[in-house]
Amino acid sequence: MSSTFGRALKISIFGESHGAATGGVADSFPAGEIVDMELLNKMMARRRPGQKHTTPRQESDAVEILSGVYQNKTTGTPLAVTIANTNCHSADYDNLKFVPRPGHADYAAQLRYNGFADRRGGGHFSGRLTAPIVALGAIAQQILARRNVFVGAHLASVWNIADANFDAVKLDRETLLAAGKKDFPVLDDNAKLLMQRAIEAAAIEGDSLGGVVECGVIGFPAGVGSPIFDRIECRLGEALFAIPAVRGVEFGNGFACTQLKGSTNNDAFIAGDPTLRTATNRHGGILGGISSGMPMIFRAAFKPTPSIAKAQKSVDLGTMRETTLAVEGRHDPCVAIRAVPVVEAMASLVLLDFLLGEKPEFLR
Amino acid sequence: MSSTFGRALKISIFGESHGAATGGVADSFPAGEIVDMELLNKMMARRRPGQKHTTPRQESDAVEILSGVYQNKTTGTPLAVTIANTNCHSADYDNLKFVPRPGHADYAAQLRYNGFADRRGGGHFSGRLTAPIVALGAIAQQILARRNVFVGAHLASVWNIADANFDAVKLDRETLLAAGKKDFPVLDDNAKLLMQRAIEAAAIEGDSLGGVVECGVIGFPAGVGSPIFDRIECRLGEALFAIPAVRGVEFGNGFACTQLKGSTNNDAFIAGDPTLRTATNRHGGILGGISSGMPMIFRAAFKPTPSIAKAQKSVDLGTMRETTLAVEGRHDPCVAIRAVPVVEAMASLVLLDFLLGEKPEFLR
Amino acid sequence: MSSTFGRALKISIFGESHGAATGGVADSFPAGEIVDMELLNKMMARRRPGQKHTTPRQESDAVEILSGVYQNKTTGTPLAVTIANTNCHSADYDNLKFVPRPGHADYAAQLRYNGFADRRGGGHFSGRLTAPIVALGAIAQQILARRNVFVGAHLASVWNIADANFDAVKLDRETLLAAGKKDFPVLDDNAKLLMQRAIEAAAIEGDSLGGVVECGVIGFPAGVGSPIFDRIECRLGEALFAIPAVRGVEFGNGFACTQLKGSTNNDAFIAGDPTLRTATNRHGGILGGISSGMPMIFRAAFKPTPSIAKAQKSVDLGTMRETTLAVEGRHDPCVAIRAVPVVEAMASLVLLDFLLGEKPEFLR
Amino acid sequence: MSSTFGRALKISIFGESHGAATGGVADSFPAGEIVDMELLNKMMARRRPGQKHTTPRQESDAVEILSGVYQNKTTGTPLAVTIANTNCHSADYDNLKFVPRPGHADYAAQLRYNGFADRRGGGHFSGRLTAPIVALGAIAQQILARRNVFVGAHLASVWNIADANFDAVKLDRETLLAAGKKDFPVLDDNAKLLMQRAIEAAAIEGDSLGGVVECGVIGFPAGVGSPIFDRIECRLGEALFAIPAVRGVEFGNGFACTQLKGSTNNDAFIAGDPTLRTATNRHGGILGGISSGMPMIFRAAFKPTPSIAKAQKSVDLGTMRETTLAVEGRHDPCVAIRAVPVVEAMASLVLLDFLLGEKPEFLR
Repeated sequence: MSSTFGRALKISIFGESHGAATGGVADSFPAGEIVDMELLNKMMARRRPGQKHTTPRQESDAVEILSGVYQNKTTGTPLAVTIANTNCHSADYDNLKFVPRPGHADYAAQLRYNGFADRRGGGHFSGRLTAPIVALGAIAQQILARRNVFVGAHLASVWNIADANFDAVKLDRETLLAAGKKDFPVLDDNAKLLMQRAIEAAAIEGDSLGGVVECGVIGFPAGVGSPIFDRIECRLGEALFAIPAVRGVEFGNGFACTQLKGSTNNDAFIAGDPTLRTATNRHGGILGGISSGMPMIFRAAFKPTPSIAKAQKSVDLGTMRETTLAVEGRHDPCVAIRAVPVVEAMASLVLLDFLLGEKPEFLR
Repeated sequence: MSSTFGRALKISIFGESHGAATGGVADSFPAGEIVDMELLNKMMARRRPGQKHTTPRQESDAVEILSGVYQNKTTGTPLAVTIANTNCHSADYDNLKFVPRPGHADYAAQLRYNGFADRRGGGHFSGRLTAPIVALGAIAQQILARRNVFVGAHLASVWNIADANFDAVKLDRETLLAAGKKDFPVLDDNAKLLMQRAIEAAAIEGDSLGGVVECGVIGFPAGVGSPIFDRIECRLGEALFAIPAVRGVEFGNGFACTQLKGSTNNDAFIAGDPTLRTATNRHGGILGGISSGMPMIFRAAFKPTPSIAKAQKSVDLGTMRETTLAVEGRHDPCVAIRAVPVVEAMASLVLLDFLLGEKPEFLR
Repeated sequence: MSSTFGRALKISIFGESHGAATGGVADSFPAGEIVDMELLNKMMARRRPGQKHTTPRQESDAVEILSGVYQNKTTGTPLAVTIANTNCHSADYDNLKFVPRPGHADYAAQLRYNGFADRRGGGHFSGRLTAPIVALGAIAQQILARRNVFVGAHLASVWNIADANFDAVKLDRETLLAAGKKDFPVLDDNAKLLMQRAIEAAAIEGDSLGGVVECGVIGFPAGVGSPIFDRIECRLGEALFAIPAVRGVEFGNGFACTQLKGSTNNDAFIAGDPTLRTATNRHGGILGGISSGMPMIFRAAFKPTPSIAKAQKSVDLGTMRETTLAVEGRHDPCVAIRAVPVVEAMASLVLLDFLLGEKPEFLR
Repeated sequence: MSSTFGRALKISIFGESHGAATGGVADSFPAGEIVDMELLNKMMARRRPGQKHTTPRQESDAVEILSGVYQNKTTGTPLAVTIANTNCHSADYDNLKFVPRPGHADYAAQLRYNGFADRRGGGHFSGRLTAPIVALGAIAQQILARRNVFVGAHLASVWNIADANFDAVKLDRETLLAAGKKDFPVLDDNAKLLMQRAIEAAAIEGDSLGGVVECGVIGFPAGVGSPIFDRIECRLGEALFAIPAVRGVEFGNGFACTQLKGSTNNDAFIAGDPTLRTATNRHGGILGGISSGMPMIFRAAFKPTPSIAKAQKSVDLGTMRETTLAVEGRHDPCVAIRAVPVVEAMASLVLLDFLLGEKPEFLR
């Protein structure tokens, strides 16, 4: 059990933060799809550490494709990628052998694997494991974009500072993909300044901030999704909760729907061609687990990075005595920033999986 | 693809609202577990329609066990249950053949199944499909309780009226299971009065209300769960989003964590025996996808019932002209009430699956 | 883990020989397919006990469809069937509580389920569990036949008496389906007489005979199947070994291919329209795990029924002393006869699953 | 769908014969297991090309472990291996772009992947894909051996020349592992000489020979396996049919059981401590899909290598005219020789998966 998911498109992820490499296998993309490495590398760059406001760990995150691509096109058989780890400072983690970081997987993983897990840099629980997800997701995103299905996300909030929201009814390609083209993934540049200032202040204090990532999808065909356990929400939810630090997921107006009455929350149908549309889009493009043809909207909440320089109380597992821990290492003051392409990647993989399983003719 | 989930414990659900029966198969519970039918029926009664503040459709929801139980104990082979549908008023749904209900799966399902789905009463998308989930979940819940793992939920809010919250650190068995023993599933009886008044008012207006269900788990062993795609959040998230009307899921302090700094959000470890504890429990008992040994806390947001008597705009699919729809039928003014045992059932099935797959010795 | 299989079409089987019912869930057949109950019942009749040369246990094997069919057509959501057990003589099995039958699952199941399995009539290990497989397989077979894919089997041998073989190159629909229309499933009526005589003789001696079932498929499109673990052989093999009493499975010329040189075993390609054909068909319609477009041919070996009236040596598990056992009950002198439609059903389910997963446009 | 299998232990295989590398991911081995690279490399050497009587392609088959091992022990998280391809002569395959080899996957794969598959050297269908299976299987085999479960195989026959058989009752560790320690994997050295002579003669003729591999398992605990679709035969069958060139699989006395009467085929139980034994072992250690505690015995039939130097008839797919093909390249005259460790690897992976899923306490 564990690092494998998907139905028609199975994804298997492997690696540790300070091991030889991280990587993943996609079994399998449809055959004959061009893999645009330049686009893929741009997507990787958005997630890459060493940018401003992120961890100073420098990694080139060069993606090597080991299989499944021939003459620049997918073969239809398993596509494997690896991303070498090149800049590991294992010494930074030495005290973690005994004192688990509050808010982090350290202690739970210690119990789970009877002490045999590679804990250096968080091991298999590190955010670096999202690198192969982005690499494979970028290929899925390209395959979808070729069919005019676009997946884009932005940082909807950092701490108490909000970006503009996507317009769930009129969402167009330009707006959807705008944040992904900027050096800081927001729609509103005023929000950017406030967020950056807050992040810098937190970093100086040796602290960290959380945030919400909002993702939109346009062009996805209506009538895809299955009842009960394979609702789109089930599988997007499963995939989004697989991203480290995600604590909540919501679709459409999400938790806010509980504050509305049915007569206000329901979206009226209006005639459309060839499929109906809705006048409003509180349902976020998914009804009964099935795509309605309206833009999909969903959000994931990322907690503030647990690894912080500020002193925190923990327990030395050697002596079982309480102690104080200040995490040195190199950590993101706000993981939500680099999580934006990860959310896009996960969503692209899940939606491509649904199309392969339920509507493969859409991919022809 | 669709109505099947789980790893070591596979659940398959079938049925339509106005068909012969709904049912489910669990493959398989551990062998030798007593099935307490009285407790199971009490759990069913909490979900049953025809109670006050719920749909007037009367169903006895009698559970028949077809296999997997011998001399009152589980055999370890597939356990199948059916629940006959006895009180179907199919005539109520006749106009739905042409005019999809806003906010409901009708239209999306029509596209998904090329018009062949049994739409009577919502068909396979009906809330009645949660009946076999509760029946199987009740058995899982009994198996867990026998090991002092308790799963309980309550209605944390209806519309803008909040119940008391679980205390995530001190949560005890009595509080956890209190709401499930009442006729209206809240902790605070003042909240009950306000909620019931609001629901009655909405019902009179032909409208409906949403709500949030909060679920807690105590006694679950630390160190269970797997990284990336089999985190506990992934699989509980997948299962909770499988309940009709759920639009959001959060763990621990959930979306609220994005408003805190890391230094405040992290829960300090304190020495404990045999496993560490945390002084606070914003992480909701799950760290890095793995149980920490602290009480688990999570919430699901239920939208207001989409089927309402108030007139709404929709489209006649025969003529493709816009029209107005008032849903007659018999509907819950607030589905969140009856969803409380469904959340417990789903959580029990997922957590038992984790134990079977990762820590079966706990079940011996 | 256990009684669930399939990818795009998931099958879950439940029941015990002397419980309330056996049944199964198919999740899900394509929507809009007519379910011809007359044909389905004919298929059931071929498997039904109480015929000549089979166990005298009388069961009507009436199939009840609980879900997934509306107005005589599949809805596309899970289709559940049950078959009530009506003629159980549990007393026949009383001594089995202590003395396991040689060659039977009794003892292994006792260990597997810590003594909690329902052993009456073999419980979940009984051949009766093939009844729901035949019911669901009959629906799959009808869906395939509507696309001119035909699946048919016959009794290739009983003990040392051989039937004629299918002609792997020229196999036509009439020959393929001939045995299924007879009261004894062979191609050659002389073989029938010899086989029946041998079976009657064995029955009189209180003994039993094994046999080989050969299955053919015509009309299946070329280019379906996947490399490595989802080869057609993998999944047909998995499914055929799931039938009680199967001890060997082979494709094309099977084990005999090891006696040939490559130059003789290879089948030369010849031009064909639209796909190539082969001059001979030793490969049995599958190359590299993928359908070649030639008729598929495979065989399953069924051991002689282990439950026999003749005295056999076993051990009383109460006293752990060796003893002698003569199985009373009502048993088939040759299970291979009734296994013929079960092989067809399994093959139909697997092949439909492949089409749903890899070539759904073929089903439109 | 395709190159992924397993339940509690999921295996995903990737790579092409002439691509950068082949590899695999095991998700996941139990934590804390020593990985003995010397033993692993010995197992790889048994499968490696370039030995006498096998293809002259020289490959070092050096296994690189990318993840899942820390300080020489498994971490319990996904273990990924890669094996670089270093000696590819792609020119050898140029004419295959148009003329499919008889008996090979070329043509079927061309249809399956719409012409986008990497056909160089057989691509993903090449026998080289068994290299990562052997690497991962070797680790499984070591984990089993540490619990006194031993898996060993030998070449039971080549063409019409038979080796000695395993004694299914008295099989001991020394005999079981004997063939694996020799330069030619047989029990009887006279058979070796005859087989080698026949293989050399076939090679000189530009032809090839098939063979049967027999595998045995001792020390596997009784009472493991599940009814219906997760019988041990189902999953071993699935895995063995995943090895290129396998055309038949049988357990115990297999197809030969159909020539016996029940009274002769059944194995009498005899008292044993702590579990019963059987006086004979025609059932091959598996009863009703569950391990009986007796040695397991099964066999796989490998067809003669389809790629031969002798001229064969095929069709030029460019012109659609019939033509003659002599496969140049470098091919094994008898793939069954190198398949012996592959059978052991597959069996080890499947049996470890069963223990992880059903009897993990055995692995503690």
